[in-house]
Amino acid sequence: MKILVVNPNTTASMTAKIDVCARNAASPGTEIIARNPPSGPVSIEGHYDEAISTPGLLDEIRRGEAEGMDGFVIACFDDPAIGACRELATGPVLGICEAAMRAASMISTSFSVVTTLPRSIPIIEDLALRYGLERRCRRVRAVDLPVLALEDDPEARNRVLSEVRAAVAKDRCEAVILGCAGMADLTDWLSLEAGVPVIDGVVAGVRLVEALVGAGLKTSKIGAYATPRKKQSG
Amino acid sequence: MKILVVNPNTTASMTAKIDVCARNAASPGTEIIARNPPSGPVSIEGHYDEAISTPGLLDEIRRGEAEGMDGFVIACFDDPAIGACRELATGPVLGICEAAMRAASMISTSFSVVTTLPRSIPIIEDLALRYGLERRCRRVRAVDLPVLALEDDPEARNRVLSEVRAAVAKDRCEAVILGCAGMADLTDWLSLEAGVPVIDGVVAGVRLVEALVGAGLKTSKIGAYATPRKKQSG
Amino acid sequence: MKILVVNPNTTASMTAKIDVCARNAASPGTEIIARNPPSGPVSIEGHYDEAISTPGLLDEIRRGEAEGMDGFVIACFDDPAIGACRELATGPVLGICEAAMRAASMISTSFSVVTTLPRSIPIIEDLALRYGLERRCRRVRAVDLPVLALEDDPEARNRVLSEVRAAVAKDRCEAVILGCAGMADLTDWLSLEAGVPVIDGVVAGVRLVEALVGAGLKTSKIGAYATPRKKQSG
Amino acid sequence: MKILVVNPNTTASMTAKIDVCARNAASPGTEIIARNPPSGPVSIEGHYDEAISTPGLLDEIRRGEAEGMDGFVIACFDDPAIGACRELATGPVLGICEAAMRAASMISTSFSVVTTLPRSIPIIEDLALRYGLERRCRRVRAVDLPVLALEDDPEARNRVLSEVRAAVAKDRCEAVILGCAGMADLTDWLSLEAGVPVIDGVVAGVRLVEALVGAGLKTSKIGAYATPRKKQSG
Amino acid sequence: MKILVVNPNTTASMTAKIDVCARNAASPGTEIIARNPPSGPVSIEGHYDEAISTPGLLDEIRRGEAEGMDGFVIACFDDPAIGACRELATGPVLGICEAAMRAASMISTSFSVVTTLPRSIPIIEDLALRYGLERRCRRVRAVDLPVLALEDDPEARNRVLSEVRAAVAKDRCEAVILGCAGMADLTDWLSLEAGVPVIDGVVAGVRLVEALVGAGLKTSKIGAYATPRKKQSG
Amino acid sequence: MKILVVNPNTTASMTAKIDVCARNAASPGTEIIARNPPSGPVSIEGHYDEAISTPGLLDEIRRGEAEGMDGFVIACFDDPAIGACRELATGPVLGICEAAMRAASMISTSFSVVTTLPRSIPIIEDLALRYGLERRCRRVRAVDLPVLALEDDPEARNRVLSEVRAAVAKDRCEAVILGCAGMADLTDWLSLEAGVPVIDGVVAGVRLVEALVGAGLKTSKIGAYATPRKKQSG
Repeated sequence: MKILVVNPNTTASMTAKIDVCARNAASPGTEIIARNPPSGPVSIEGHYDEAISTPGLLDEIRRGEAEGMDGFVIACFDDPAIGACRELATGPVLGICEAAMRAASMISTSFSVVTTLPRSIPIIEDLALRYGLERRCRRVRAVDLPVLALEDDPEARNRVLSEVRAAVAKDRCEAVILGCAGMADLTDWLSLEAGVPVIDGVVAGVRLVEALVGAGLKTSKIGAYATPRKKQSG
Repeated sequence: MKILVVNPNTTASMTAKIDVCARNAASPGTEIIARNPPSGPVSIEGHYDEAISTPGLLDEIRRGEAEGMDGFVIACFDDPAIGACRELATGPVLGICEAAMRAASMISTSFSVVTTLPRSIPIIEDLALRYGLERRCRRVRAVDLPVLALEDDPEARNRVLSEVRAAVAKDRCEAVILGCAGMADLTDWLSLEAGVPVIDGVVAGVRLVEALVGAGLKTSKIGAYATPRKKQSG
Repeated sequence: MKILVVNPNTTASMTAKIDVCARNAASPGTEIIARNPPSGPVSIEGHYDEAISTPGLLDEIRRGEAEGMDGFVIACFDDPAIGACRELATGPVLGICEAAMRAASMISTSFSVVTTLPRSIPIIEDLALRYGLERRCRRVRAVDLPVLALEDDPEARNRVLSEVRAAVAKDRCEAVILGCAGMADLTDWLSLEAGVPVIDGVVAGVRLVEALVGAGLKTSKIGAYATPRKKQSG
Repeated sequence: MKILVVNPNTTASMTAKIDVCARNAASPGTEIIARNPPSGPVSIEGHYDEAISTPGLLDEIRRGEAEGMDGFVIACFDDPAIGACRELATGPVLGICEAAMRAASMISTSFSVVTTLPRSIPIIEDLALRYGLERRCRRVRAVDLPVLALEDDPEARNRVLSEVRAAVAKDRCEAVILGCAGMADLTDWLSLEAGVPVIDGVVAGVRLVEALVGAGLKTSKIGAYATPRKKQSG
Repeated sequence: MKILVVNPNTTASMTAKIDVCARNAASPGTEIIARNPPSGPVSIEGHYDEAISTPGLLDEIRRGEAEGMDGFVIACFDDPAIGACRELATGPVLGICEAAMRAASMISTSFSVVTTLPRSIPIIEDLALRYGLERRCRRVRAVDLPVLALEDDPEARNRVLSEVRAAVAKDRCEAVILGCAGMADLTDWLSLEAGVPVIDGVVAGVRLVEALVGAGLKTSKIGAYATPRKKQSG
Repeated sequence: MKILVVNPNTTASMTAKIDVCARNAASPGTEIIARNPPSGPVSIEGHYDEAISTPGLLDEIRRGEAEGMDGFVIACFDDPAIGACRELATGPVLGICEAAMRAASMISTSFSVVTTLPRSIPIIEDLALRYGLERRCRRVRAVDLPVLALEDDPEARNRVLSEVRAAVAKDRCEAVILGCAGMADLTDWLSLEAGVPVIDGVVAGVRLVEALVGAGLKTSKIGAYATPRKKQSG
């Protein structure tokens, strides 16, 4: 089984980190291909960044589809352009926010999310609503660090841990979701320190896409995710 | 007051029709500027088309912002990239789906939507949920004609009327929304024939943006719609 | 265009203040007529006051309708008797709670409300639910001052500002709504001080009614707001 | 225990019918006092009628409270002015819509409502939402007969039965609620004919108010239903 | 009228306390029979305890049905096996959580629950959702004492009072529900001390079942609560 | 990885069929152990059957836990005693209703369910609500055949197909879920005939449990699913 993991931003070091996480997460028989588009924003922090990352992301999906990828993971917690990706793909497509939230819902009755910037909070709340998980999502919290600081800032991991602990103590949630692909390498440490299941979307995404492919399920093509109609572009 | 109305597809004849509707709808003191991007899809029918129309749309918003536009209407019923547009704009930004649904909610207790293609139904249902109007939206109906057929097909208007009548009779709604900017010129005729308020999003959008500007309200910049963070693009 | 703004309580000084706000808010071509009923409660603080203000309010709507008013604003944040007013009116009718909440929803993803008395909190929460905006409404806060204290008490404005700031800091809302017509004159000052869009329902109501009238929309008469059936009164 | 049952319209024959139903429904130790206001609409069919019935209704509640009534039933399916009545009353107050819906919820997983006029459908749907029972309420149906026709029209009972049967067959509900106090005398016959629990709000209201009084519960006075503040009326 | 009150755990002293509460709560004409199963868990603290209490509980319902009981109260706040009990019973069946929540909803606009162990919080939140009262339920609080400590621990009642007061002050609820049958004897004292309606589910359950029986209502047998199909057991 | 699949009824032929489906569904490295309790109902058709199957089901979970099973699938579409199972288990536990609904949500925007008996419809609707998928679930349909008829009745498969087709045509859903473990062998045929993804809960359950185990996720033990408290049984 071949799964394409697309990091929709253009920061190759983040793609490399995601690649490691995805490979570690994958089953023995699964081949992980991690890529980022050649052009686009270096990080995705809000609707605008998400929008301008979309053309590059869709090119990667189209290319992956042509190469016969069995499934797709979009490794950005805003789940950018997920509907468009599903229109292009035959196999299952999961964003890491949806993957993490659905995984959390199967092992707990509630979760909180710890993300990077406060401006992402309403975006993630909106996704929870669309996935039907607004009642399970106790709160979305932000460490107030930009995405790329997670690459550089040695203090960043402590701020993430401190927010994970606050989620458990104050939100009374039963699981914590890491709301940024750049936090993936902290998962085990955080879970151990905080004594609660901590869920990374890349891991959840790879495993859930494997599950759907393994179950013989493909994206439904009779409604919202039908193949795009052929048309001229002006 | 200057309002930029962007048709995110590249069909100039549809932009011209939207322009006429918007001008007819506007208050005396309002200047309407209707534009479409130079490149992109000729019509928007689904998530993929929406996604690839986004770069052109955002360019128009950015240009309009630089020109000092007071407000913005996005004349496609999928309300594409509305969050990204709001990040770029100082003044209010409305998609025509949101505009029509909010207008309907102020003059009725329920509405149905008549759109073009069945594949758009779940997209519009998702928008109704995000706007908090899922309980007001009785049903989204499709005439099963592509967007551009509304330009060409003399039978199209009768199919729209027939679906509007079905909405009143079967969904027991109190108002009907036209779910495509290309239907804007049929509004008055449909309302007269069906005996029910029929709402076009371009008209509603222009008038509601005028209202927000007139009320001195600008897009909130302290959360989801904050100005995009400056960053390199790869 | 003529818009009747009804203050449903009988305090003429509040009607005068509302009148000034409404006139300042209105478009050049709009004539504002602000009135209060000759009899009824001096302020509306709860369901009972609301109920006994209703006969006077309905008389004003009926009279306004006979005079050919194009639209109506009910300048009390409990949106009293809004359904009955809509049955009597041909044009659009908005209560200031609905107007402010719908305006807030078009420029932000969430809002809080600052009202006068704690007893009004559940009333306003119930309105948010009925308008479909319960997910957008972060919290309803009360300064714990009676309505008429806003007329007299020099400290009142500081308490309002302090609560507006608490809303931004603690509720993480993106806009703040003033939950009483008597706060209308504080809007600009509060917005400036708190650095967040602050929305007054009278301003929003006047502009949104203008927008609906301008869009050619009237209250739907085929359902809940049909003209009252003729009948004897015992 | 003394329970005041107020018919908020002025049709004495309907009050008499409600009185009989309430007495038949009451426990041995309960005294039923059924009254209607001396002035107001002869029937309540929509928001306006509801609004103009309110002053008379509130006078009856105030008088009943002064006479030491232990609880109150408002015998109109629109549950008019229920918040205002609760502010005036020490004991529990139930409208017959709320009473019937809460009773239905305790013996079934879903119900439909059969009311008189189509214009009441959105009013009742709105009440179901406010009571938290919108998911239990499968559908609100109307026989399309005015309230007083139930007094006069021999065919009316057959139309009601036919709609009750349609509710069971098509809505797949498990109980049916009669959406008008004027249908109270048909309850047993309808239940027998349709083979489903049929619930009349007057019966449910009397018994549930008895239950609350018997449980020592009074209307909470620390929030929305606090006693009205003393004030001048203009 | 004969009402069977089943304590689904096997602690006879708790059954005795429930019996006293139920008798004190019942109307003059009502006979209360309080029982617990001969075997099962000594207290119910979580899903597992609830599950293993079920066979004994169902035996008591079946026996009560054979004896001609008119209605049933399940005196455990998790409302265990309520659907199965309703399938076995002809008359109405109420769990004490549902009874208390429905009673609270008729005398207030919001309530909080004070229960024993934190692990019960998500269980009770789930019940509130299923009963349609998730918007009325401000918060579920736990005193963090095991169920049987309420029998033994002299400090327990003060901890309950302190949590009731916190509910009023911090959750801004209008009524408080006691989330454990073992707290039933504290109700009046708590209500007096905290100045808010305090609702015990045993009292509410007995009175509401009386009300349903008195209204001639039985459990609907045409859907979810139909009599179990006859079948072999393996 | 070892996954225990428990058929909670005692019909060995159904367990055998489930076993085949589960083995076919599992990944190469997964060992499937399918069992049913030695005693309990021969089929589960409603709340009562579900309740009496619980002791046997819990014994199997406890035994599986002692044997070191990595995860658990409960192969009955009512998802019986799922909370109790999760309290007993260290690894993930999924009922087949939850598994199928979560899988459907990842490849479509809406689904319908085709189950056996009409009495199961409200049970499944209640599960959809608790899983947050009530907006995705278009309708639950029943073929009106008892569970064991699927074993014997040659016409049964055609009735299932006919209902699957009705779901696509009338409910406008994008995927169909088979609402009974006994339909598992029909999945591929139905999907081919109806041209829509058809989802069996056993397949989805096995693959999703594999995914959760593979992602290193265990059932959260800090809240609702904490290990049962040790206690005496009476």
